[in-house]
Amino acid sequence: MRFTVLTLFPKQIEDILGHSIIARAMSRGLIEVERVDIRDYSVNKHRKVDDTLYGGGTGMLMQAQPVYDAWKSVVGDDKRPHTVYLSPQGKVFNQDIAHELSKLKHVVFLCGHYEGVDQRAIDLIVDEEISIGDYVLTGGELAACVIIDAVSRLIPNVLPDASAFENESHMGGLLEAPQYTKPEEFMGREVPRVLMEGHHLKIEQWRHSEALYNTLIKRPDMLDQLHLTVDEWLELFHRDRADESLKDE
Amino acid sequence: MRFTVLTLFPKQIEDILGHSIIARAMSRGLIEVERVDIRDYSVNKHRKVDDTLYGGGTGMLMQAQPVYDAWKSVVGDDKRPHTVYLSPQGKVFNQDIAHELSKLKHVVFLCGHYEGVDQRAIDLIVDEEISIGDYVLTGGELAACVIIDAVSRLIPNVLPDASAFENESHMGGLLEAPQYTKPEEFMGREVPRVLMEGHHLKIEQWRHSEALYNTLIKRPDMLDQLHLTVDEWLELFHRDRADESLKDE
Repeated sequence: MRFTVLTLFPKQIEDILGHSIIARAMSRGLIEVERVDIRDYSVNKHRKVDDTLYGGGTGMLMQAQPVYDAWKSVVGDDKRPHTVYLSPQGKVFNQDIAHELSKLKHVVFLCGHYEGVDQRAIDLIVDEEISIGDYVLTGGELAACVIIDAVSRLIPNVLPDASAFENESHMGGLLEAPQYTKPEEFMGREVPRVLMEGHHLKIEQWRHSEALYNTLIKRPDMLDQLHLTVDEWLELFHRDRADESLKDE
Repeated sequence: MRFTVLTLFPKQIEDILGHSIIARAMSRGLIEVERVDIRDYSVNKHRKVDDTLYGGGTGMLMQAQPVYDAWKSVVGDDKRPHTVYLSPQGKVFNQDIAHELSKLKHVVFLCGHYEGVDQRAIDLIVDEEISIGDYVLTGGELAACVIIDAVSRLIPNVLPDASAFENESHMGGLLEAPQYTKPEEFMGREVPRVLMEGHHLKIEQWRHSEALYNTLIKRPDMLDQLHLTVDEWLELFHRDRADESLKDE
């Protein structure tokens, strides 16, 4: 899979992605991340790419021409790659969108800076506006890298073990159960006994129950989409009462 | 303001944040970002910090001891800094949380890796679990940097112009109006005339109307929290009809 990032800060993209699993996936040829410096497409002798806003206002706006020409440089004659503008105005990125993007051969990201990008460049090249969340960042670079990270790890062979991501948070619509590793006791706190008794069915049941409870406590909004069975609701109900009686002791 | 990042990949934090406004804010002493390598606190002779899961399962878990000791190294005797665990299970980060965090003097971030962190370390040190969105990332490092970026830019003097962020997306609960800069025409597309006529009130009205419309089209969920006036709803209604009649022409 190929990612192209149109940016004023190509070095930043390189630095952010030069680590961990993503760097390994690049060196193994599983993904390719290309950085295009929008400034290289400025026709201004000072390599200027921004100007003031029509109608007034503070800050500077990226001009349409260098953005459009940078994009044109990566677009083949025949096909138009899916182009994403990183913008607080976009639809909010989630794991479903990550899956959709992971099916594509080539995704182009446009990173805005300053006050944003001239609307005409957006109208001409952008297929989809995506935001990584309801907060404001300095530029689109971090956001593009977040998406590249989330998408890359869905591509076959990028993660070391194909089964590794199956149990992960958000994968089954529930949060995870708490997890424990050695030693058995740390600062007076013991690993729950069921995890050490080797009874696989009981462990599964405990984890499912903890995952349900975790989701109820931390992200009740996620339960809406899950259509719990009556048994699962009863499990949560009993779990809650057990917690209450523990407090009473 | 001081940020401390507990991580297995301190170089990654350095590389991600070594750019743009954040790097400038660090060099000007407005913010301080400290990186603590959890591996330095391993008591294992091979500097091992992870082990297998109790109860079975693929992947490795970060052990409680090195995480706890790394955290202890930055905690003063008297006060306990606000400690955030970056986790897909946390509450979803947004601009309100960014404002809350920006009021603190010291925030510690714990970045998980592998399958996560032993629950006992979380129970002992973490005040708040935060997720930057409903998607799965390789580790907490990118997420910590996203939060540091969003929070830092709210700290006085970090942004070049105090007024620069007032009009930004999400600040007033509405998305922004489209923006335009030179030239007046690009590939046959002209800047909306109202922006070039210098009538400030009309420009304000146009921008407000476009912002409302943008929000209606792209993020109708945001309108719920806005309590629009009847006039604003009528404006949207007329705008929608105007669009329809344009299509008919």
